[in-house]
Amino acid sequence: MHPFDEAVRLAPLGGDRFNGHISPAYGNMVGPFGGVIAAVMLNAVLGHPSRQGDPVALTVNFAAPIKDAAFVITARAVRTNRSNQHWLLELEQDGNVAITATALLATRRETWRSTEVLPPQAPAVASVIPLTGDGLPAWARWVSNYELRVVRGNMTVDGVEREDSASTLWVRDAVPRPLDFLSLAALSDVFFPRVMVRRQRMIPSGTVSMTVYFHADAEALSRQGTDALLATARAQRFHDLYFDQTAQLWSKDNELLVVTNQLVYYRE
Amino acid sequence: MHPFDEAVRLAPLGGDRFNGHISPAYGNMVGPFGGVIAAVMLNAVLGHPSRQGDPVALTVNFAAPIKDAAFVITARAVRTNRSNQHWLLELEQDGNVAITATALLATRRETWRSTEVLPPQAPAVASVIPLTGDGLPAWARWVSNYELRVVRGNMTVDGVEREDSASTLWVRDAVPRPLDFLSLAALSDVFFPRVMVRRQRMIPSGTVSMTVYFHADAEALSRQGTDALLATARAQRFHDLYFDQTAQLWSKDNELLVVTNQLVYYRE
Repeated sequence: MHPFDEAVRLAPLGGDRFNGHISPAYGNMVGPFGGVIAAVMLNAVLGHPSRQGDPVALTVNFAAPIKDAAFVITARAVRTNRSNQHWLLELEQDGNVAITATALLATRRETWRSTEVLPPQAPAVASVIPLTGDGLPAWARWVSNYELRVVRGNMTVDGVEREDSASTLWVRDAVPRPLDFLSLAALSDVFFPRVMVRRQRMIPSGTVSMTVYFHADAEALSRQGTDALLATARAQRFHDLYFDQTAQLWSKDNELLVVTNQLVYYRE
Repeated sequence: MHPFDEAVRLAPLGGDRFNGHISPAYGNMVGPFGGVIAAVMLNAVLGHPSRQGDPVALTVNFAAPIKDAAFVITARAVRTNRSNQHWLLELEQDGNVAITATALLATRRETWRSTEVLPPQAPAVASVIPLTGDGLPAWARWVSNYELRVVRGNMTVDGVEREDSASTLWVRDAVPRPLDFLSLAALSDVFFPRVMVRRQRMIPSGTVSMTVYFHADAEALSRQGTDALLATARAQRFHDLYFDQTAQLWSKDNELLVVTNQLVYYRE
């Protein structure tokens, strides 16, 4: 079994409840990598017998760290309309809520289409050397699950403040795995904290809320397969404990698959 | 009482429950203006006796239209940490969920600060003529609650497709009212649907999910007072029934008060 599938695996407990336990392979500073938490929440929706449609919007709130132990996700379809379905989710551990989420599924049909923004400039995947785990702190275990080729805005922690927090990278699973909605949700959180890219020093920080809008449909996923995505992110403002991050994930064929935003806590 | 305060007014029903009824003055195509719905959800949190801190993140999901009748909001503080608090909300009408939301409150303290983006170009407020309600369809009743001065990207519905969907406008309450977190939440949804600005024709559309990140703190609100905000928005991609919108609200002094994103349904 692929390590990602193992990490996001859920066992149905009947009704709206699912049992899970994210594997330590996706460990981060405090608890598991946020992207894999987003994916496991979405997995409860996609594996629910009432599911109708594919994901178009997902918001995940990180209320408390998840311990390396089992948890229970409750996923409720609060409203099913003709072409979309709204979900409300909670993840509990030891009887306390650690994660909340809302998700929107939809059945699409063809309409007028347009992409107004351009992908970031980047050299071909093969010409960018992948990061090795060498420069990374021991707690950042999750990173080894991804092949990251940083084009711009690497986190070197050399202490020299940069002009801006923008990063662009090619990214895919280290063990090749065809792209699906779960891995797209996880990849939406693949960026290092913008405050550390901007200031190039270790600063305790963690995502408190993230939102993913999926422009990718099932055909876009299958066109992408196991190839690398082009990911780009930047902050707009850092202010008194919280900064925002706005990001895009592009396919190898310059299709905008995801736009994603998050609010991140930083301590100094 | 100011029409906005009347629209978002709630009566506590005890515990986590509040009774509300948005006034018809904020009516839109189907049910009330989404911004006032976002504000009334936030009002349940801010008026709850367990509230700790000020809003930093808010996501509102529009699951069904709200009828011109009373509703009940349930606001649960699912996790209170040392410096932040996570909320889960549902709005029900006739026993059915019409709106879901999550909110994050926080107590800030001073840290390193930076704004990486620039406000849009705009002439002085007084030099831009406010919109009159004349060109607007009868259903867009909510618009008359705002003084809108469109700098760029007006919705003229002349049928001539534009190069992009970007809009910039000066905006404030038509009846002056000092800015607060509730009116900031409402203003985050003040933009006309991007698909109609881009294509300049009437296209049935409606927000299905919106997220607001508040960079403004109480002092920023009081500096702004009743002056106009500079608001700017654009879409990134329109694809098969859904497009995204990314937007910013700036203070008169070029402070980034809000970054906000939404996913919008469009029918053709």
